[in-house]
Amino acid sequence: MIEGLTIVAVIFIIALIVAMTRQDGGELDSYYDSSDGECYEHKWGYTDTRFEFDGPRTVRVTGDRYRLCGFTMPYFVPFVEEVLGVPITPEEMVEEVERQRLPEAKLDNAFRSAIDKCFGRERIGSSDGERLVHSHGQLSVDEIYRLLYIGGLQKVVDVVIYPESEKDVRDLVELATEHEVVLIPYGGGTNVSGALACPTAETRTIASVDMRRLNRIEAVDEENLQATAQAGITGKELERELGALGYTSGHDPDSVELSTLGGWISTNASGMKKNRYGNSEDIVLEATLVTPSGDVKTHRASPRNSTGVQPRALLFGSEGNFGIITKGTIKIHKLPEVRQYGALAFPRFEQGVAFLKQLSADGGLPASIRLVNNTEFRFGQALKPSPSPFKAVIDRVQKFILFKLKGFTPEEICGCTIVMEGTRREVENQKEVIFELAKDHGGLSVGAKLGQRGYMLTFGIAYIRDFFNQFQLLGETFETSVPWNRIHDVIGAVREKLVEQTAHHQVRGTPYLAYRVTQVYHTGVCIYFTMGFSGKGLDKADEVYHDVEHSLRQVILDHGGSLSHHHGIGKVRHSFLSQIQSQGAIEVIRQAKGAMDPKNIFAIGNGVFAEGN
Amino acid sequence: MIEGLTIVAVIFIIALIVAMTRQDGGELDSYYDSSDGECYEHKWGYTDTRFEFDGPRTVRVTGDRYRLCGFTMPYFVPFVEEVLGVPITPEEMVEEVERQRLPEAKLDNAFRSAIDKCFGRERIGSSDGERLVHSHGQLSVDEIYRLLYIGGLQKVVDVVIYPESEKDVRDLVELATEHEVVLIPYGGGTNVSGALACPTAETRTIASVDMRRLNRIEAVDEENLQATAQAGITGKELERELGALGYTSGHDPDSVELSTLGGWISTNASGMKKNRYGNSEDIVLEATLVTPSGDVKTHRASPRNSTGVQPRALLFGSEGNFGIITKGTIKIHKLPEVRQYGALAFPRFEQGVAFLKQLSADGGLPASIRLVNNTEFRFGQALKPSPSPFKAVIDRVQKFILFKLKGFTPEEICGCTIVMEGTRREVENQKEVIFELAKDHGGLSVGAKLGQRGYMLTFGIAYIRDFFNQFQLLGETFETSVPWNRIHDVIGAVREKLVEQTAHHQVRGTPYLAYRVTQVYHTGVCIYFTMGFSGKGLDKADEVYHDVEHSLRQVILDHGGSLSHHHGIGKVRHSFLSQIQSQGAIEVIRQAKGAMDPKNIFAIGNGVFAEGN
Repeated sequence: MIEGLTIVAVIFIIALIVAMTRQDGGELDSYYDSSDGECYEHKWGYTDTRFEFDGPRTVRVTGDRYRLCGFTMPYFVPFVEEVLGVPITPEEMVEEVERQRLPEAKLDNAFRSAIDKCFGRERIGSSDGERLVHSHGQLSVDEIYRLLYIGGLQKVVDVVIYPESEKDVRDLVELATEHEVVLIPYGGGTNVSGALACPTAETRTIASVDMRRLNRIEAVDEENLQATAQAGITGKELERELGALGYTSGHDPDSVELSTLGGWISTNASGMKKNRYGNSEDIVLEATLVTPSGDVKTHRASPRNSTGVQPRALLFGSEGNFGIITKGTIKIHKLPEVRQYGALAFPRFEQGVAFLKQLSADGGLPASIRLVNNTEFRFGQALKPSPSPFKAVIDRVQKFILFKLKGFTPEEICGCTIVMEGTRREVENQKEVIFELAKDHGGLSVGAKLGQRGYMLTFGIAYIRDFFNQFQLLGETFETSVPWNRIHDVIGAVREKLVEQTAHHQVRGTPYLAYRVTQVYHTGVCIYFTMGFSGKGLDKADEVYHDVEHSLRQVILDHGGSLSHHHGIGKVRHSFLSQIQSQGAIEVIRQAKGAMDPKNIFAIGNGVFAEGN
Repeated sequence: MIEGLTIVAVIFIIALIVAMTRQDGGELDSYYDSSDGECYEHKWGYTDTRFEFDGPRTVRVTGDRYRLCGFTMPYFVPFVEEVLGVPITPEEMVEEVERQRLPEAKLDNAFRSAIDKCFGRERIGSSDGERLVHSHGQLSVDEIYRLLYIGGLQKVVDVVIYPESEKDVRDLVELATEHEVVLIPYGGGTNVSGALACPTAETRTIASVDMRRLNRIEAVDEENLQATAQAGITGKELERELGALGYTSGHDPDSVELSTLGGWISTNASGMKKNRYGNSEDIVLEATLVTPSGDVKTHRASPRNSTGVQPRALLFGSEGNFGIITKGTIKIHKLPEVRQYGALAFPRFEQGVAFLKQLSADGGLPASIRLVNNTEFRFGQALKPSPSPFKAVIDRVQKFILFKLKGFTPEEICGCTIVMEGTRREVENQKEVIFELAKDHGGLSVGAKLGQRGYMLTFGIAYIRDFFNQFQLLGETFETSVPWNRIHDVIGAVREKLVEQTAHHQVRGTPYLAYRVTQVYHTGVCIYFTMGFSGKGLDKADEVYHDVEHSLRQVILDHGGSLSHHHGIGKVRHSFLSQIQSQGAIEVIRQAKGAMDPKNIFAIGNGVFAEGN
């Protein structure tokens, strides 16, 4: 009998070792659903997807869009209650406030009839719903929480225009200039920087320019591996169409389902697979910016140039301040021969960082590699279903190996997820380099499935914010780029300041802080924080949240972090700009705008142009 | 006897195959001499090095600075005579004209005493020699040939200032603004775009600002793999100092011995090993530009940012128009574990291009890979010494294999040289990928020695221009970036136009045209042309040269090439700018200058600011 059990145990261990060391997959599975769907007006994503209770102590994600969908999660509520120290029960949920009644649109007859004549009814939106949707991005507290639970936005656009061609855009810019109407370019509406918030002091008519009907790929140049697409194309549309031809842009920001090419350029976006495909500034060869003073562009994309200051340089990070980006020429790549996932566990976060640094210096970075801290690792585990009896035993053996045999601890273990793409040979070689080096740093391969799951989580998990908001849990992600030797300083300082600030404001329970390294560069990394705390019982919870966030941003700067790695400045970080840029630099950017937009038609007021800057 | 010969032949063949397939080297040999030396006033490089006759039909390179030095070249004169169809004999050489007498320096007493007081005698140069040296770059015909053989430059600077600190630079900019004196930043003086030529219509005093005393590395941050250096540091100094600490910047433009960090930024320079280390825009994380309106900079370098329009974007390609770049923070890399060379022969240039395209798509690019056309391949062979008897037989067997067994022809064979750097494993892997793929494209490995020689040639061969000038042979290199599918169109059009134009101008002999692919990008390549013809007997040879060069530039644009890959615009390509950039883009750059330099102190007049633009 004992012998029989031993045999079973040995079989389990072997099965487990096989499971843990298998890197494969290999097929080009998509980590998000390529189908379209109806989107929420204000919340994140598609209406088929939301976190909801399916029992008093369990939740599930509706629909079947993501791998996270359709099963009961028994560990989620206990985990959140444990880390936040507040109850997560249906009884704690609050109702949304009634949607605000919008002030009447400020639209004089002359402009109204000019746009009617030029665009016709079907390219003009005037409903309160459309106006409200186009007046915010996805800032969790300032925009979404405020709109749903406090009572609306301070200022909203007066009208929405849907251009369908570059000519429409030029016509609109001309009309706006003539009638002194403010234009705010709108892409996917996914920014988390307040970039779409209407400047409160603006007295002119404000028109939102929704670019999403400019969503065609104009040309695919397979010989030169480049494509020209209209700026309103979403990442999902772009990848779907390129994919059908056997290509990819390789640009995969977390918002890829909804964000647009124009948005990527104007925020200087970063994609998770930048090690292989580059960030937006590497991917976009040229683009066209339509301004009141004419187009700013280079007439033809070429592989690389030395022809004086490059016009394209002004587009990246322009955040809508100069004009409307109408199209871009981007690099495209043949779909990789193989895509494989991997996952590693490290006993401590510091070891994971040391591994990443060495891997970067050795030139071994795969398409994507991310390192999540212990909290985020446990959070990922909390989103699992109840295991089958067999899986439960496997899990137990896995834990035994990790925590008893290998010396990991549940309080310090952290995880690293990997995407490798390329030729079979390239990927095989990467795998060898990565997994050998990981061993030197105390890392243990924990199987491709976990790696794949990590990337799948990215897309489904975005919906969790709107679940939490119902409990008055205020949360946001914020990110920075940090030199290698300041990573732990920045993290420590953020943690300390968050504890201090939430105590100061007498926040209920415990603040939540998780973080991960999402990008690796030669001189450092991007750290992506997720922070949250309960706003229940606070007087002006949104303002408390603001104070706390602001103080965290300052300690990041004080400890060597940058102001933003990829979210941008918009309206929430502009007050820090003078700490990072010289006055001379700021003045040049102002004058450059003066050249493109002398009447300040694009008065969106982001970055150095923000009110009070 | 016959049998004995057969055995000898077989041994030779085996020895040859071994020689041809050996890739190695492995040690980190330098491909240029890291020692300093006295430089020519006007010609290229160090005074210890020149091409000269060492017999009526043979030449050698003096000194021992380069591997090309110190041996008799018996094939060189016959080759040049063959391709150019003109005699190359000592009797054909012409004498340099007497150096022009410079107009008196325009220096009013107030400015003179202000700079005397601020900088003292030892930081001010007033001699005719210093003034002349600082009034040109290395444009072969417009600058060097004109100066040495026609009779001088149109306009020269009035004084030279040698700042020794960033404070000196700021003081000087302030003084110049106060006294309305024009400043022209001077780095290595190696540009080939006329960037240092004084605008002829300028009526104010012109001061050259020689930055080469600002040549210190201010900080090496080994933890974060970055270093901050003053802008006047030459590539040679930078690499020597970094190398002593075990690091490299990886930036190796052909001018690396003499050109400076500030020059690399302001011309948007490219280095031969950009596949591994990046071009200047990838290497330089941040830099400081001192302008009359204050500094333009980001206060701290960080790994990557999304913080609005980046000030640094305005520095790349600024060509001295905005102010003086004083320092930069660059990425540094540990010296690679191994460096290995390789060389391939392809039966035809087209096959080499197809190979490069596939290698790029497969992600297999080594640190550097170059493909030279047949003419340039033969030119490289012509720079060899007489072989030893043993080597002569090897050569003959090698030729037998190539031309008889493998089907190559002497008229079409072309060569590809390779530098691989990295960890031993990385390089081994690259080697496998490269040499296997080359076989698929008809390529044959011809040994590491040939590869290494190709890179050595780069530095020694720069001196050849000044040898040719003595025979009234006018020549220049010019470059473009071209999408993959236009490479052969561009080359064909250039060849055709050159033949047509030189016939039209009744040029003596045959024009010389060689070209190589020096850089590979995702969407195309850089083509680097070398063109030359005899100016003997022409009325205004320099103007004929100009016409021809101009017409070639236009056909490059007409056939899909870019205006410049890395040489920049300066004063020789400005008239084409309106063909590549929109008027709106040009206007923004003008306004940006207005913000930084409202009194046009930096009236160097390059690119969009050139006279007549």
